[in-house]
Amino acid sequence: MHLLISHIQDHIKLTDIEAEFIANQIPLKYFDSKTLLLKSGDIATASYFVKSGVLRGYYTDDHLNEHVLQFACERWWIADLYSLLTQSPANLTIEVIEKSEIYILNQNLKEVLYTKIPKLERYFRILTENALIAQQQRILFTMSLTAEERFKLFCKKYPGLIHRVPQKQIASYIGVTPEFFSKMKSKLLREL
Amino acid sequence: MHLLISHIQDHIKLTDIEAEFIANQIPLKYFDSKTLLLKSGDIATASYFVKSGVLRGYYTDDHLNEHVLQFACERWWIADLYSLLTQSPANLTIEVIEKSEIYILNQNLKEVLYTKIPKLERYFRILTENALIAQQQRILFTMSLTAEERFKLFCKKYPGLIHRVPQKQIASYIGVTPEFFSKMKSKLLREL
Repeated sequence: MHLLISHIQDHIKLTDIEAEFIANQIPLKYFDSKTLLLKSGDIATASYFVKSGVLRGYYTDDHLNEHVLQFACERWWIADLYSLLTQSPANLTIEVIEKSEIYILNQNLKEVLYTKIPKLERYFRILTENALIAQQQRILFTMSLTAEERFKLFCKKYPGLIHRVPQKQIASYIGVTPEFFSKMKSKLLREL
Repeated sequence: MHLLISHIQDHIKLTDIEAEFIANQIPLKYFDSKTLLLKSGDIATASYFVKSGVLRGYYTDDHLNEHVLQFACERWWIADLYSLLTQSPANLTIEVIEKSEIYILNQNLKEVLYTKIPKLERYFRILTENALIAQQQRILFTMSLTAEERFKLFCKKYPGLIHRVPQKQIASYIGVTPEFFSKMKSKLLREL
């Protein structure tokens, strides 16, 4: 089974010819952990769909602190849309956290696909709406929830990821220091 | 000139028949300030496009503090996408800040329009991408910029809005107390 085609077919119907065309155009590549798919400051050229493994997108501030904006595991897309669409230097670095198989959708190819198979507009419209909702909720939760509540939501949103990703990266995603995160996690485990 | 049709035509080409069809389906309504177009807890039914006036979308936390997530002035869309798409109770309240003329796009009609005029998928895909980029940048800026820098960005993003919206709402959008905002504004004005 082609995981990306099946993901697209969860949202729109493709003919066999369309599915084959897309599958042939989008290469699957293998990456070791610590590979950077995109470096902040570079111009993004592609979006990434995870077949297996984990990626993270993070932002490095002027004090060289890293802020994790997103993790992407199986069946997730990740990209620096801002850089892709405006052709400005990327804000994000996208890094492979564990050995991964990734479908790479080049932005020029994406535009070609929109012309050849216009219903892909619908697929990406729906995905972008879902991403917007997730991000809006993240802003609201940062404003209104405690770190503990945000950690519980992280576990719900990314099941099992807590065992695959360094703790300091989860702490960064939740917006707390690694020390605080470690204490909070021990406390929550004791309560279970 | 029909402002919404012209906004759509900035992104996709419509035939005269399509433009007339859309214009006839989407009503323009007039609202006084303080009207609530959506109340948090209700199920959202529509998206709103501002012809004139200003709206704001805000979230009220458990301590009854209001957090402004978005302003919408002329030529902006605003909605609680989460509630619209999941049919769950809205997180946001959408309030009219100054007397406004608003095009109301009912969600059921939106689905009909996607079927009748599929290229509208492209229009909303592009708008949603832009909204996602704006929101992603907002998260990054909250993580990494000072309140002063965030205020300067607000003035750039919403030109002139500082004279149309209560200061405490701008303070909330930027993420500072009204008192801090007032001091910061005076300081910046002295520096000009």
